[in-house]
Amino acid sequence: LLFVSLYSDGGWESSWTRTAAAEAESVASISCSGHGRVFLDGSILDGKPVCECNACYGGPSCSVFLTECIADADSGDPMFLEPFWVKHAASSTIVVPGWHRMSYEFNDGSLVSKELDARIRMLHAVVGNAVTDGRYIVFGGGATQLLHAAVHALSDPFSPSRVVASTPYYPVYREQTEFFNSQDYKFEGDASLYKNTRVCEGNFIEFVTSPNNPDGQLKKAVLEGQYVKTIHDLAYYWPHYTAVPAPVEEDLMIFTLSKLTGHGGSRFGWAIIKDEAVYERMLNYMSLSTYGVPRETQLRVLKLLKLATENEGKEMFNFGYKTMSNRWRKLSKTMSTSKRFSIQELEPQRCSFSQKLRKPTPAFAWLKCEREEDKDCNAVLNSVNVTGRDGSLFGAESRYVRLSLVKSEDDFDLLLERMGLLVSRENDDSGDRINEIM
Amino acid sequence: LLFVSLYSDGGWESSWTRTAAAEAESVASISCSGHGRVFLDGSILDGKPVCECNACYGGPSCSVFLTECIADADSGDPMFLEPFWVKHAASSTIVVPGWHRMSYEFNDGSLVSKELDARIRMLHAVVGNAVTDGRYIVFGGGATQLLHAAVHALSDPFSPSRVVASTPYYPVYREQTEFFNSQDYKFEGDASLYKNTRVCEGNFIEFVTSPNNPDGQLKKAVLEGQYVKTIHDLAYYWPHYTAVPAPVEEDLMIFTLSKLTGHGGSRFGWAIIKDEAVYERMLNYMSLSTYGVPRETQLRVLKLLKLATENEGKEMFNFGYKTMSNRWRKLSKTMSTSKRFSIQELEPQRCSFSQKLRKPTPAFAWLKCEREEDKDCNAVLNSVNVTGRDGSLFGAESRYVRLSLVKSEDDFDLLLERMGLLVSRENDDSGDRINEIM
Repeated sequence: LLFVSLYSDGGWESSWTRTAAAEAESVASISCSGHGRVFLDGSILDGKPVCECNACYGGPSCSVFLTECIADADSGDPMFLEPFWVKHAASSTIVVPGWHRMSYEFNDGSLVSKELDARIRMLHAVVGNAVTDGRYIVFGGGATQLLHAAVHALSDPFSPSRVVASTPYYPVYREQTEFFNSQDYKFEGDASLYKNTRVCEGNFIEFVTSPNNPDGQLKKAVLEGQYVKTIHDLAYYWPHYTAVPAPVEEDLMIFTLSKLTGHGGSRFGWAIIKDEAVYERMLNYMSLSTYGVPRETQLRVLKLLKLATENEGKEMFNFGYKTMSNRWRKLSKTMSTSKRFSIQELEPQRCSFSQKLRKPTPAFAWLKCEREEDKDCNAVLNSVNVTGRDGSLFGAESRYVRLSLVKSEDDFDLLLERMGLLVSRENDDSGDRINEIM
Repeated sequence: LLFVSLYSDGGWESSWTRTAAAEAESVASISCSGHGRVFLDGSILDGKPVCECNACYGGPSCSVFLTECIADADSGDPMFLEPFWVKHAASSTIVVPGWHRMSYEFNDGSLVSKELDARIRMLHAVVGNAVTDGRYIVFGGGATQLLHAAVHALSDPFSPSRVVASTPYYPVYREQTEFFNSQDYKFEGDASLYKNTRVCEGNFIEFVTSPNNPDGQLKKAVLEGQYVKTIHDLAYYWPHYTAVPAPVEEDLMIFTLSKLTGHGGSRFGWAIIKDEAVYERMLNYMSLSTYGVPRETQLRVLKLLKLATENEGKEMFNFGYKTMSNRWRKLSKTMSTSKRFSIQELEPQRCSFSQKLRKPTPAFAWLKCEREEDKDCNAVLNSVNVTGRDGSLFGAESRYVRLSLVKSEDDFDLLLERMGLLVSRENDDSGDRINEIM
């Protein structure tokens, strides 16, 4: 391996970034048949880095399809964006020196990069999905950390709050609130049940998810009044997944990098907050929970968002929209001949970002088993080696299953194929039934 | 700027790491007079990256000493290790491609790098400070996140626990437990108060910090019995700060990267756990709190620990010991002539790591104002523009102040100078008093 760096001013002929760059390039150049990758911190076997294969692929170079493999559509892991970053490797790579930002705090005593804060504001201005002017921004370890920090910040130790969300809702709202078992709040399920409750019956904190996880519908708060506080989870309010009719201007809005750029593993999210006291309470939470988000993560996010906002954000969002609309079109077509299963109906909508009428591009299919006897819809899917997330986790019936459409191309292709098989069997079955009747 | 990469196999002449590497080298080459640095994600002024100066230095290139500046010895920010990483830039730099580990999970479904887990075990074997064989390791967002996860994991929702620590103790134990206000545990202060309590009076969780923060003493648990669980905070149990008489074999031990390599900003820590059920509970906490530690952080920590364990760890730990023993020697000498102030006494100890008798090298001076009237010791320090952390935060009297000895050379030098001034005034005062009497 010969690697020479020349610098015109006659400086560092042997540069300190050389080794790390060569190592990264070398690892990246190993092929895994398009069904896997080699990572810098992956295992080494016989002195060689090992391919990490996509689900359902195996062998040393991931070339073997594992036929009995389950099509796992449970997780909302947005790997559909990975090809975008591979294509843009040169402009999305960072080099982190060993001495980069070692301190606990930035120079101003804060735990957040000012440049990243500014870049996030620019991003929302470009996309037009949220108002940031005159508002505070808090960084967190994914939306995960911010969701619970927000519940904490909005609750009152002297008058415990009921935490609610309208069904079907993202399971983490319940899981987190129950797990932390605070004296200050309790999860109380479906918001709609409290719609006509007199407000004097205590404080409420309502999670509003728009577009909704699992069903992709744009949503508004169900409860209102002076004793109701709302947390707007806008994880999916990006042109990949929905029309963006207008910038949201709510008091507390939460976004996450995962669903924007696909970097779920980077555990980065942010909250946009109107009220200074709530902002201070959330900062305090971050401080006592983890003392902020790692500096190398903030550096990386800054680099990713620079590319994401380039050229008015057209490139990344076009990629996202194109991929997701293709997937929804294919799945819709496959499911259209089914009577046994239905998926949610979504209308084309005008998008202020693209200035066009756009097709639906939900992150998930919210599948319903229509037959009376199919009470456990996931069990029905399991018969063709498909698994999704059981509707009961979302506060709905097990007759519903959430199918993730955001995973890798390999994952989606297998899901589509298996769903096609299921629907074709149904048609054969109907044939059988008709035959039996006749 | 001319930058040419040649690869012997005739591959990528224009490499995708080139831009990021050139940017990093360019930023690193800007001088800030040895009293600051330029970072990749720092502010830009008139098209040029801006120097971020150490405390008490200013001007565009950090060359101006700000004479009225306060010597801030409050934070335990271990910047004394920064020069080590600057010196070893070539072997501690990482390159992170945009597509690096985007997924929520590793291929085995976990949130942790197997390579990093293995490297941490190797590190403990090299240093001989903790037993890892047959034990589980959990990663967290600094010790901060793990301390509270441990309290959660050891508590019992059906029989709330009292959380205690022997005075003086690290303030975060109290702050966190009070802040999260769980139904499952309560902070109850000094462990010694419960030493003779009958065990049937409920569950206890005791934090044991060894060497202790603030006073550097090696400590054992105060409470014992079947209703007592202990969390061993071993943040400072490294050759930088203490003799390492033997590997610790406790049930739950917590370490942090911050005090080991100085990377406080990376928010990385780990817990070593004996019991599988406790391990599972801590994993669950990590999952619902932040869904794990960012992948770019794990990659960076792996690289840093590779260097830290190289050559049996001699280089980093020698640097740490040398720096810290110099600082303690200088401060001890300065304080030795004082009657108004005392600092803790620490004896030379035999270290199994270095196989030598070693001088004391505590991370903090635990300063006591000896005069009856000096009840607020920090106020006395403020008179010469020094500030430390008030003893009352550690459950002790305000007659004590913790002074950080782990910050940058600039910080330490200023602290030493100001403490010298304070002690010399005391001697002048004594002179005055003697004169008055005579």
